[in-house]
Amino acid sequence: MTTRPIYLDYNATTPLLPEVVDAMLPYLREHFGNPSSGHSYGRQAQSAVEGARERVAALLSCDSSEVLFTSGGTEANNLAIRGVTEARGDRRHVVTTVIEHPATAQPCAWLEHHGWRVTRVGVDEAGRARVDEFRSAVDSTTALVTVMHSNNETGVLQPVGEIAELARELGAAVHTDAAQSVGKLPIDVRNLGVDLLSIAGHKLYAPKGVGALYVRHGTPLRPLVLGAGHERGLRPGTENVASIVGLGIACEIAARDLDANAERVRRLRDELWERLAAGVPGIQLNGHPSLRLPNTLSVRFPGASGNAVLAGATEVAASTGSACHAGHERASAVVLAMGIPLAEALGTVRLTLGRGTTAMDVASAADALARSWRLARP
Amino acid sequence: MTTRPIYLDYNATTPLLPEVVDAMLPYLREHFGNPSSGHSYGRQAQSAVEGARERVAALLSCDSSEVLFTSGGTEANNLAIRGVTEARGDRRHVVTTVIEHPATAQPCAWLEHHGWRVTRVGVDEAGRARVDEFRSAVDSTTALVTVMHSNNETGVLQPVGEIAELARELGAAVHTDAAQSVGKLPIDVRNLGVDLLSIAGHKLYAPKGVGALYVRHGTPLRPLVLGAGHERGLRPGTENVASIVGLGIACEIAARDLDANAERVRRLRDELWERLAAGVPGIQLNGHPSLRLPNTLSVRFPGASGNAVLAGATEVAASTGSACHAGHERASAVVLAMGIPLAEALGTVRLTLGRGTTAMDVASAADALARSWRLARP
Repeated sequence: MTTRPIYLDYNATTPLLPEVVDAMLPYLREHFGNPSSGHSYGRQAQSAVEGARERVAALLSCDSSEVLFTSGGTEANNLAIRGVTEARGDRRHVVTTVIEHPATAQPCAWLEHHGWRVTRVGVDEAGRARVDEFRSAVDSTTALVTVMHSNNETGVLQPVGEIAELARELGAAVHTDAAQSVGKLPIDVRNLGVDLLSIAGHKLYAPKGVGALYVRHGTPLRPLVLGAGHERGLRPGTENVASIVGLGIACEIAARDLDANAERVRRLRDELWERLAAGVPGIQLNGHPSLRLPNTLSVRFPGASGNAVLAGATEVAASTGSACHAGHERASAVVLAMGIPLAEALGTVRLTLGRGTTAMDVASAADALARSWRLARP
Repeated sequence: MTTRPIYLDYNATTPLLPEVVDAMLPYLREHFGNPSSGHSYGRQAQSAVEGARERVAALLSCDSSEVLFTSGGTEANNLAIRGVTEARGDRRHVVTTVIEHPATAQPCAWLEHHGWRVTRVGVDEAGRARVDEFRSAVDSTTALVTVMHSNNETGVLQPVGEIAELARELGAAVHTDAAQSVGKLPIDVRNLGVDLLSIAGHKLYAPKGVGALYVRHGTPLRPLVLGAGHERGLRPGTENVASIVGLGIACEIAARDLDANAERVRRLRDELWERLAAGVPGIQLNGHPSLRLPNTLSVRFPGASGNAVLAGATEVAASTGSACHAGHERASAVVLAMGIPLAEALGTVRLTLGRGTTAMDVASAADALARSWRLARP
């Protein structure tokens, strides 16, 4: 029998909860209707989609009519960024950070290529976007400010609330990519003060291929994908009913278990760090020690590359950075942006925990990583 | 016990094949990896996606590297239309037809709004796009010709091969929305001579929320959604692994059963027509009697609206037009484009058959529709 490696890559993707799969199955089997059909098959599917919309809205503390379903976090970010800037043709400026996921950074680069002005704000040594730079950057020509809620590599929480406040004073819409935060931390879109917020199903124990965008009532937005009138004309295409149902249930469970899960995972994460600190003299933490996701541990192994450490620790499934960059032997731009020298940055390993992580996993993984590091050192 | 209505709306959506659900389940349960992850969880997911890509390619007779996965047919059409026109900035002209699905018509309208010239070719009384009009419309400034393979409402097959030949002579790329045709008819993209072809999973017994775009090697294309490098940089976002696996299996089964299914469904469809013609004097067929999908029957009930006929025939689940327009009490633009007067066009009902349709369904549905028509007549 083959044992699977210890999975410490929950920021890359999460397994579906059994309750999520169970909720999806009837919509993959008997309830196959198209929500746009007027007959009973269609109405049943439509009602399932609307039920899921309410569950997502409950997790985010918004109205269900403010939730649009998308094919995932990437599309949600694209819709927010392209959709607001197209709707606000009078304002040709966007402000973002240097540490965004490509699903935000690339649409911003597209805008720049097409005549928009894009300002990218830096981060401090703890990996937090500099609010004072935002204050100087945002002006009355700014259509949109887009800042991730937490960084996918370091887990560092960004000062989204403060940024939203100053941006909205100047009439800019505010978007946050909260794919990594939702389900790990309580998120209330009203308290946060954002106009748009992206979530990705597969980061919170729902399936891949589904996500959602919160769009505050009154936010100017144009669709990115065009077609028939689904999702109030803002996201056409036959709804992915089963996966939407799965996302709804995952959100309901996330809300229910949020505090207990966060506490349990934080304790395990901190234990992992203590064991690594004991086994790997000189190991460093990337990013802010407390203002970060409870499940995320980004560390720098001294004198060895993160890739080498992981290659030697075959008992552990983790990554050196975001999954979307896997395979590239180069330092993370996110870590470099914090002012960490290249040679050190190359030692980075991201360890991210989740619902399935046990104390035994943590102990075994720390041992395996420390052993691999000892062999990988020059 | 409630009996469900007889489902005659397979062009709106299809139930998943049990084999498709079975193939998906392991990827909703244990094999949850992110295909971009470098570890074994990721490699397993990646390999499942690539296996599915080969199955889709086999059905379309192309190379697997020419298949991009999308969130469905709508996104595939948008990617084709926006992607080619963005890549071919030197050519600012698009040619399409007046009978396209909104997922094609709306991106074309967007282009027109943004400075492209768009020519919309009409159809003859049989519902086929006029090749001579295409011949006059396409010129050396044409970036893209986009024509659906078969119409979703009438099922009428479009002269895509002829149009592709004349378009390619002038250097225009050719796209066809084949969402309704793939799985119902043999499609060989090389013989057809198109550069891009869209498919939608949920039209061929695979799940909603997944589709694919065939892109012939060498076709200029830019991504619509931007992000990390998934799908060769042309369609970023973590792959919808389970649904992609389902689409692959559905394509494999479609290829295997194509001829037998088409023959069986065509016979049932023709029997439905004969029964309706006997029970509803004056009923008319919309569109070409033979050059149409084997499963599709679009008819005009005389002296009663299609909505009224369907409302009275509660034993039958069908629609008056495309599902994407359901709920609107207005005549189908597709039927009007064939030159059918408004009053007659309003009598239209679309009956579309599939794998689950039986001879008894056909007999009962014909009875129910004829009875409802007799009550609905003035």
